[in-house]
Amino acid sequence: MASNKISDAVIRRLPGYYRYLYGLEEQGVERISSQELGQRMGLTASQIRQDINCFGALGQQGYGYNVSELRQYIAGVLGLDRRYRVVIVGAGNIGRAVAAYPSFQKRGMDVVALFDVDPELVGQTLPNGAPILHAQGLKEYLGAHSCRVGIVATPGQVAQEAANMLVEGGVRAIWNFAPVDLKVPSHVVVNNVHLTDSLYVLLYKLKEKDLELGVVEEGE
Amino acid sequence: MASNKISDAVIRRLPGYYRYLYGLEEQGVERISSQELGQRMGLTASQIRQDINCFGALGQQGYGYNVSELRQYIAGVLGLDRRYRVVIVGAGNIGRAVAAYPSFQKRGMDVVALFDVDPELVGQTLPNGAPILHAQGLKEYLGAHSCRVGIVATPGQVAQEAANMLVEGGVRAIWNFAPVDLKVPSHVVVNNVHLTDSLYVLLYKLKEKDLELGVVEEGE
Repeated sequence: MASNKISDAVIRRLPGYYRYLYGLEEQGVERISSQELGQRMGLTASQIRQDINCFGALGQQGYGYNVSELRQYIAGVLGLDRRYRVVIVGAGNIGRAVAAYPSFQKRGMDVVALFDVDPELVGQTLPNGAPILHAQGLKEYLGAHSCRVGIVATPGQVAQEAANMLVEGGVRAIWNFAPVDLKVPSHVVVNNVHLTDSLYVLLYKLKEKDLELGVVEEGE
Repeated sequence: MASNKISDAVIRRLPGYYRYLYGLEEQGVERISSQELGQRMGLTASQIRQDINCFGALGQQGYGYNVSELRQYIAGVLGLDRRYRVVIVGAGNIGRAVAAYPSFQKRGMDVVALFDVDPELVGQTLPNGAPILHAQGLKEYLGAHSCRVGIVATPGQVAQEAANMLVEGGVRAIWNFAPVDLKVPSHVVVNNVHLTDSLYVLLYKLKEKDLELGVVEEGE
């Protein structure tokens, strides 16, 4: 399987491919041409072919792609063909929303525990069976139950501290929902979720649509 | 102010510019060169200059950019210089997390009400004062309180129905957290949040790092 040297732009498109192919597979679609896939994803057919060549997967000329094979191939490129044990630091709305996200488990993510300092939350158990434990016990927990993935869903002020505990406990990948840039050693990877970014794009689209339609927005 | 004809790639980078400039302004930084800004954002200096030319804002050669002016300029391009009244359909973990997101209000988003069908949630009031109302009353509410932005935070099966009610109530922009592609008329804009996309990128980075370090992952 091709691995290294996929450009960042292609990497950012990979999840979209996975998502669309997953949806097609669920609908029972067996084959798809680069034209059709491009139309659904808002890309050109030649872009689709280039990207898929980049991943190292090849379609058969004139026959399109086998949806299920391509989906599984991309799952392999993304590392979605394994299971990951996951701890979440911060059991507020975001932490619990992530823990309850139905497609997580399907995608190989097993949330084993959440950690918080709020006495009202500590001691609860989520519907999926994951306990909310006191954050003091995080390092010890990770010593006993190795987890490769940690999620930071704390307020910004304590996010770095949470990340430090995860790193000390052996976590290798941090999915960060706090609005701060985390510092981690080079053997650990981080990806930040900037929820507001997609809101800003929405507001930009609204402004452009207003211009197109000649809508004069009242100051609400 | 320049408006149309900004490419999609540049539009997707705009929120990042806004975020970094906002952070710099909070740290009291007054001027920044394209080199420095590029280093922080992981872009080249020439990319930064090109992008900023695209927005229609100009730095002074040799003096860099005035952080506060550029931040305000980009806020204008994004439409962040106004206030938006927002309703949220779905008052589960995601809906409440979004309503409670501290930077929302700062960015001009006033969440005025949430809507749900769960009798345990309907009648509650969030800490920011927004009530949770019954979803049956959504259209009537929007008739009395005009809102331009609606957030869909429902399960996938009822997301289209929620979107229809928002559109009928006059909402022009939908921020969609449900894992479905919503159909809306052409005068309405939609942006989808695909939370798992950023998780997939994280897992990809982890896999690449494992390869780099020669880590053989045990099947967890």
